[in-house]
Amino acid sequence: MRLDLDIAPALLFAATSNPVHLPLELLLVFGVAKLLGELMERLGQPGIVGEILAGVVLGPSVLGWVQPDQVLAALSELGVMFLLFVVGLEVKSSELLRVGGTAMLVATLGVVLPFGVGYAIMAAIHASWVEALFVGAAMVATSVGITAQVLAAKGLLQERASKVILAAAVIDDVLGLLVLAFVSSVAKGDVNVASLVTTFVMAAAFTVLIAKYGSHALGRVIPRVEQKLTSTEAQFNLALLLLFSLSVLAVWLGVAAIVGAFLAGMALSETVNRRVHDLAQGINELLVPFFLAGIGIHLNISVFGSAATLWLSVGVLIAAIVTKLIGCGVGAWRLGRADMLRVGVGMIPRGEVGMVVAQIGLGMGVITESVYAVVVFMTVATTLVAPPMLKFAYRKSPRGLPEEKFSLS
Amino acid sequence: MRLDLDIAPALLFAATSNPVHLPLELLLVFGVAKLLGELMERLGQPGIVGEILAGVVLGPSVLGWVQPDQVLAALSELGVMFLLFVVGLEVKSSELLRVGGTAMLVATLGVVLPFGVGYAIMAAIHASWVEALFVGAAMVATSVGITAQVLAAKGLLQERASKVILAAAVIDDVLGLLVLAFVSSVAKGDVNVASLVTTFVMAAAFTVLIAKYGSHALGRVIPRVEQKLTSTEAQFNLALLLLFSLSVLAVWLGVAAIVGAFLAGMALSETVNRRVHDLAQGINELLVPFFLAGIGIHLNISVFGSAATLWLSVGVLIAAIVTKLIGCGVGAWRLGRADMLRVGVGMIPRGEVGMVVAQIGLGMGVITESVYAVVVFMTVATTLVAPPMLKFAYRKSPRGLPEEKFSLS
Repeated sequence: MRLDLDIAPALLFAATSNPVHLPLELLLVFGVAKLLGELMERLGQPGIVGEILAGVVLGPSVLGWVQPDQVLAALSELGVMFLLFVVGLEVKSSELLRVGGTAMLVATLGVVLPFGVGYAIMAAIHASWVEALFVGAAMVATSVGITAQVLAAKGLLQERASKVILAAAVIDDVLGLLVLAFVSSVAKGDVNVASLVTTFVMAAAFTVLIAKYGSHALGRVIPRVEQKLTSTEAQFNLALLLLFSLSVLAVWLGVAAIVGAFLAGMALSETVNRRVHDLAQGINELLVPFFLAGIGIHLNISVFGSAATLWLSVGVLIAAIVTKLIGCGVGAWRLGRADMLRVGVGMIPRGEVGMVVAQIGLGMGVITESVYAVVVFMTVATTLVAPPMLKFAYRKSPRGLPEEKFSLS
Repeated sequence: MRLDLDIAPALLFAATSNPVHLPLELLLVFGVAKLLGELMERLGQPGIVGEILAGVVLGPSVLGWVQPDQVLAALSELGVMFLLFVVGLEVKSSELLRVGGTAMLVATLGVVLPFGVGYAIMAAIHASWVEALFVGAAMVATSVGITAQVLAAKGLLQERASKVILAAAVIDDVLGLLVLAFVSSVAKGDVNVASLVTTFVMAAAFTVLIAKYGSHALGRVIPRVEQKLTSTEAQFNLALLLLFSLSVLAVWLGVAAIVGAFLAGMALSETVNRRVHDLAQGINELLVPFFLAGIGIHLNISVFGSAATLWLSVGVLIAAIVTKLIGCGVGAWRLGRADMLRVGVGMIPRGEVGMVVAQIGLGMGVITESVYAVVVFMTVATTLVAPPMLKFAYRKSPRGLPEEKFSLS
């Protein structure tokens, strides 16, 4: 069943692209995301699960009313950039640096274990070793957006475990870059160790420098520049410029744009006023549903087509969950059992990051369409199971109010 | 001179679309728009002129660093939708209906005069009469976004002349729909009067009904629905749903999405709290520069290639300015000379609306590439000259503070 998008009077618009397309796409994605989010909340589940499911329902897998396109992809990417920016605004870099040692251990174990097990599973079913390397790489990268959204919505960003998760996710992204660069160069048969080291060192240096000195530098620069500007909302405009600049820099250095966005937010967290938070929050309210639904939209139910693919999907999914849970959990052993569980669960979602790795492998022709579908299934499914698990893991948290609004009818 | 967008390590991203593209486009468009906006303010001109010029400078006409693409078009359309939504939030529908008679006269004269003169100019240079009709139609539609942005930025939305401009712009859009529908059907050689009347009546009924009863109905519905919802920012989410719904309805009925967005804002203006304004304002701050630069980006300097096209451009531009100034000014004769000037000037910008009409004509093959370029030049140029003229027209306004911030160095 397909929705007819061409109900506009045929008389007009014959020659231009259909002008109802954008508003209708906005209405469908935003409306269904909010509707299913509300439904999930009433069922005692995090609303975020409903918003991801909205993408599954609207996308090619079920109704086919909305197709992945450039515009949705851009709104989704902007959405996760602003999500991480706003999360960064809530976090002081000094607090993140304080948990740096633990976060490093969490990130490292959370990279090694999924990569190894992912490779082993593919090797066990006699896939080519390049394909096995790519599946391993796709299982490495945590998508911190999902966890950050759950924690921010429940007011749990100030918990110690939350800070370890955020710091570990940033380190994880840099390590993931290294793994992807290594795997890609192996697939091309051209491993250049010097180039790999340079890429890694530059990305790591960028991250550490901004985290360490960004806040102090901006605390001096922003107020001076701001008072020289005539425009209204000058502080917010400066914040957006920093956000875009660090996102571009991050991508140029090989890490994800969202790492740049998070670092920009964190560097500004001690300088900007409440107004900047509010204005950025407005952008989030609009765009984050597109990020969430945008993940669900990519699900391809053809993985359930053959028994072999189905079993592989289930195996990869379980491995993806268990390896992060154990790897990251063990990495956080110093924090005690409650926080070990929180950290382990918080690192599970793969979201858009795993999908990008799989797309690169597909584009290079080293992984097959069906393995690609398996990886996408794993990324969507880890993203769906993590929020309820997070809710469970944080249930005893003093600041957590898991039952806050469910008493309403 | 072209900017190399492919500085990212070639090792990665070989297979996916370049991930630096979106953040870099955001940085360039937003950054240059704000920079030139600031520069214009310091030169005593409205910042909006600088933001439009940013599109001209970055676009194919000058640097060629940014090309018009689907994503920029979507951000631009979203930007003008939110701009009109926020303007609607500031306006009570009762106040707009009160100036309805004057606005109707302003809109009608402001449609008849430009259409007639546009047709006459093209007829005088022996263009085909279908082409002449299309140029006339492209000169009809006021793009209220530019004027609204200037008035909102200077805190002038509550002036009587401002309300006449807003009401007249909405009526103008409905009349413009009728003109475009008529011209398109003439071009196809298939004039169906019944269909034209139906289109017009439905569009007019939609606009009048929402303007008249929307505010009252939502005042009853929104609070009831809101208190049943569990999500945070429920009121803002409901507002966005209404915005998208009315935009879709408006387009289905043949009027512009921004008319639906404006009506949605106005219908909510007496119901929603300050928080909704602030959150929507955040979205505006991000997206409006894309709307403004998006107009400039379409300018094609090839119109200056031949003397004939150049003179035609100048003639069409002068006609476009003078016919709105006189037509709309005379329509507002009851308000006195100061307001006549304000209304006349406020209706001058054609912005994106004239461009859409010209695109339809181009797509139907009834206007030539060079006439298309002339119309686009007219739309961009009217949009650039209007803000300084508006600043002049409102200089004596008691609420206007034209010098508000220019004293800062």
